[in-house]
Amino acid sequence: MALPLDGIIVLEFSQYLSGPCAGLRLADLGARVIKIEHPEKGEAGRKLAIKNLWVDNSSLLFHTINRNKESFAADLNNEEDMQWLRKLIARADVIIHNFRPGVMERKGLGYEAVKEIRPSIVYTRISGYGEAGPWKNKPGQDLLVQSLSGLAYTTGSGGEAPVPLGLGIGDYLCGNQAVQFIIAALIKVRKTGRGTLLQLSLMESLIDFQFEFFTTYFQSRRAPERARFNNANALLSAPYGVYQTAGGYIAVAMMPLQALNRALQCPALEAYPEEDAFSKRDEIKRVIAAHLLTQTSHYWLQRAEALDLWIMPVLNWEQMRQSAGYTVLDMEQEIVLDKNRRFTTTRCPVRINGAVIKSGRRAPAVGENNEDIKISLG
Amino acid sequence: MALPLDGIIVLEFSQYLSGPCAGLRLADLGARVIKIEHPEKGEAGRKLAIKNLWVDNSSLLFHTINRNKESFAADLNNEEDMQWLRKLIARADVIIHNFRPGVMERKGLGYEAVKEIRPSIVYTRISGYGEAGPWKNKPGQDLLVQSLSGLAYTTGSGGEAPVPLGLGIGDYLCGNQAVQFIIAALIKVRKTGRGTLLQLSLMESLIDFQFEFFTTYFQSRRAPERARFNNANALLSAPYGVYQTAGGYIAVAMMPLQALNRALQCPALEAYPEEDAFSKRDEIKRVIAAHLLTQTSHYWLQRAEALDLWIMPVLNWEQMRQSAGYTVLDMEQEIVLDKNRRFTTTRCPVRINGAVIKSGRRAPAVGENNEDIKISLG
Repeated sequence: MALPLDGIIVLEFSQYLSGPCAGLRLADLGARVIKIEHPEKGEAGRKLAIKNLWVDNSSLLFHTINRNKESFAADLNNEEDMQWLRKLIARADVIIHNFRPGVMERKGLGYEAVKEIRPSIVYTRISGYGEAGPWKNKPGQDLLVQSLSGLAYTTGSGGEAPVPLGLGIGDYLCGNQAVQFIIAALIKVRKTGRGTLLQLSLMESLIDFQFEFFTTYFQSRRAPERARFNNANALLSAPYGVYQTAGGYIAVAMMPLQALNRALQCPALEAYPEEDAFSKRDEIKRVIAAHLLTQTSHYWLQRAEALDLWIMPVLNWEQMRQSAGYTVLDMEQEIVLDKNRRFTTTRCPVRINGAVIKSGRRAPAVGENNEDIKISLG
Repeated sequence: MALPLDGIIVLEFSQYLSGPCAGLRLADLGARVIKIEHPEKGEAGRKLAIKNLWVDNSSLLFHTINRNKESFAADLNNEEDMQWLRKLIARADVIIHNFRPGVMERKGLGYEAVKEIRPSIVYTRISGYGEAGPWKNKPGQDLLVQSLSGLAYTTGSGGEAPVPLGLGIGDYLCGNQAVQFIIAALIKVRKTGRGTLLQLSLMESLIDFQFEFFTTYFQSRRAPERARFNNANALLSAPYGVYQTAGGYIAVAMMPLQALNRALQCPALEAYPEEDAFSKRDEIKRVIAAHLLTQTSHYWLQRAEALDLWIMPVLNWEQMRQSAGYTVLDMEQEIVLDKNRRFTTTRCPVRINGAVIKSGRRAPAVGENNEDIKISLG
């Protein structure tokens, strides 16, 4: 399949998740993404293993994030390597880095220096907290940014501890937004021929993610307060939340209280007019919770489905992977490591002209593509 | 400032969050985004209020998501309106809709019909669960998609109920990814002149978000299990998590146990070699938790800072908004409603050539731009 970004060259001076996650999406959309790595150490993410799963001398995590890319090994302190790198930059469309502020400048690879070599470059800097202010040199680690950004106070129930989201959301969001801005900048560069500097941070991405909450807070002058029972969104009324049943959990989204009463035969709800759904939400949710515990998820789901109510089961990964609704999405793809070994990961989440995008190409070894790249540079 | 998508016309047949959130980003990047709305009812999101905050006869929530756009009122059952709409489509670059599968086709506005009018269109369909399979007609509501996708089992601690993230993450992520694919498709359309159909769903976006977890699960054949105490990432060792102190909370990211011991003088940690950090994580986290309760956040943060350890405070929104690290980001912008009224919201999370993107333009009233648009169409 001809992909939208065919012909675009991206140099990824990035480590761990945010930058490499942007590179992965660009690669899946057709760009040629070349990781620039230290000849001995390689990208730091190669050594970051989760559950102690390794593919070769790089971790499964690294292979997941860096499939479908090339690797060019270069020591930024070696002048010969730097000469090759400058030749490569002269042909590149995009540079992404997520080093702490000042590192690339000290190596002679700051935006101004790169623009001298390649005036049309889209140069992207990802930081933890922006490039100024008291946090600029703090570690841009996901849990820490979640905690500083207020995000941990959106989740879990009121009166309890703030609950961080159990995934690297700041890295992932910022990487995804970098892709938006990079491709938009490419459109402009093609019109004007002039390069663009993009600056993003995990912190700004997590604030943007909370834009509805912040705007509500700015106007009401009161910070949203998590429901004290079964919270699922601090701004929403009962019944919104996840409820335990006899042997499982179901999610109950927004609906009028009396519709819920009729569907699930919960007459205790008759005491609550709709005007109370926000102000008495904790009390109402406890009434619903006690009622839902009396029957299985299957029982409640059948009743809800008959009336088209917004209620669905809460699945774990095993249940999800076994469901026909997951299978039909065709979300999995195999990455070919060598003749005998493969691993399974998920694909790029879009269909283009009806087709999913899959690529079996594995992550490169450090410097695996040096020779080919040098030959092509002449 | 000249913006990257100046000159691009986007028609938004969208409601609530996912589609309008994509439109908002495209608008902030310079596109002209025109909402197509029913002349009487308008977009359904206009009536969706949180905390009962209204700006006019549309909610603050609607104004937050739909600022910087125009509105063209058209009744899709009225032939005269449809004629105008076809003229508008003939000039559009992008269409986004998030109706349930089949709705736009029945109105004569499916991809094939639109391509007849505008061969270069980038036509984007956002669904809840994809367009086939047993979930295709289920309500694509955020909490329900979180629950079906396994996401709720990433957060909160093991042995406890699954915890939904307290924000509309499926809508927001899918809207953000739509922007990536739309702009990438625009690059290709400019080369080939041929239109593109893009299909996304909240479900696929939430699966993509869990890509590291799913890949680990596929290989280890064991689903990640949340830590049973202070979970912050099912795949990570102690000390990773949020801890209560005397009067607050701090986040402790990854670090060797003995480094933590030395920095925070927690000799009980000496019993645990680093190999135990994953297998005994619950026990170790309880040891750390008991120790951290004995002093204030300020005390621990000073010690951590001196040693450059990855520990930061957990801030709520008030604390965050008052911090110098937030102020320096310049994240807020004012939207002008009329001579006397404004409201404050957050800006697009990027700097382009050093400048933030702000626009004070408010959301339109239903059909506010009909006259101007009709004149421009001749």
